[in-house]
Amino acid sequence: MIRPFERKGSRVVLETPIFKLREDMATHPGSGRTAPYVVLESPDWVNMVAITERETVLLVRQWRHGSRTIELELPAGLVEEGEDPLEAAARELLEETGFEAARWSVIGQVQPNSAYQDNVCTTALAEGCRRVGEQRLDAGEDIEVIEVSVEELRGLFRAGELRNGMVVCGLMWWLDRTGRALW
Amino acid sequence: MIRPFERKGSRVVLETPIFKLREDMATHPGSGRTAPYVVLESPDWVNMVAITERETVLLVRQWRHGSRTIELELPAGLVEEGEDPLEAAARELLEETGFEAARWSVIGQVQPNSAYQDNVCTTALAEGCRRVGEQRLDAGEDIEVIEVSVEELRGLFRAGELRNGMVVCGLMWWLDRTGRALW
Repeated sequence: MIRPFERKGSRVVLETPIFKLREDMATHPGSGRTAPYVVLESPDWVNMVAITERETVLLVRQWRHGSRTIELELPAGLVEEGEDPLEAAARELLEETGFEAARWSVIGQVQPNSAYQDNVCTTALAEGCRRVGEQRLDAGEDIEVIEVSVEELRGLFRAGELRNGMVVCGLMWWLDRTGRALW
Repeated sequence: MIRPFERKGSRVVLETPIFKLREDMATHPGSGRTAPYVVLESPDWVNMVAITERETVLLVRQWRHGSRTIELELPAGLVEEGEDPLEAAARELLEETGFEAARWSVIGQVQPNSAYQDNVCTTALAEGCRRVGEQRLDAGEDIEVIEVSVEELRGLFRAGELRNGMVVCGLMWWLDRTGRALW
């Protein structure tokens, strides 16, 4: 029977623009040993499988500072304090791509990093998307919007062009729920 | 056309037992604006879909300090410096579960967090697993090993009992490659 560790103390070590780094002192339920554990307090994330009126899927290409590579991904963003994940998804889709959706629903949710991060990532399905304006990017962003057919998407995915774990989760769920296999 | 940001400087801000926190100064290719970006330098990760000789799948249940919940997951661990991901997988499977596999192969690889983490997570397929000894856990670990049938696994997954993003990636790939749907 697995029991929770008991938290004996907690302090914020460092604040960055994208997360707070916290150190918890926690006690092993079996041995009673207390040790420090590092946790990132992060806003929740959302990404979207956005299908246009023409049955294409919207992808974004951008430089990623973590991997130091240009990545092809689902549109995505941060959920602001008190914001519903679907509201955040609609806001981010409009900002990153200039598209609006007719219908929104939730496909699934994961813990991006259960080991040392406290947030969740929701994948939203945006259907009936159409372009209503221009991208409105933050000063630090440089994002290319790409429309692909479902078959092109499957080809890119099989070829290893979609590597971001949260994107893989969202796309695999969507493929599965729409009765499609990847391989 | 998306271009890389140019890195103008880099310094390690903080070292923890599980990652180094680095700050890069990087220049936007369009605007020329230079800004700081936080990156976690992390060892690579590996997790395993481990199938026993009896066609059951090995899962582990443990407390996760990031989510502060008890999570049901694939066995997983860190790839050590210079280690092959499949070697690391075999070592971690033996330590966490006491099982050894007859055959190893790679199912897929993702970037857990392309935005601000520099590592990859490989999912390995371990076939023909059998129990050869006891768990050998680190002092801070408390891990329960669970064997489920493929149908039980699909049921747990559909019920939302498997929430770790890297676990979701690995299991969705394995289901897809073995011709199974989740839903």
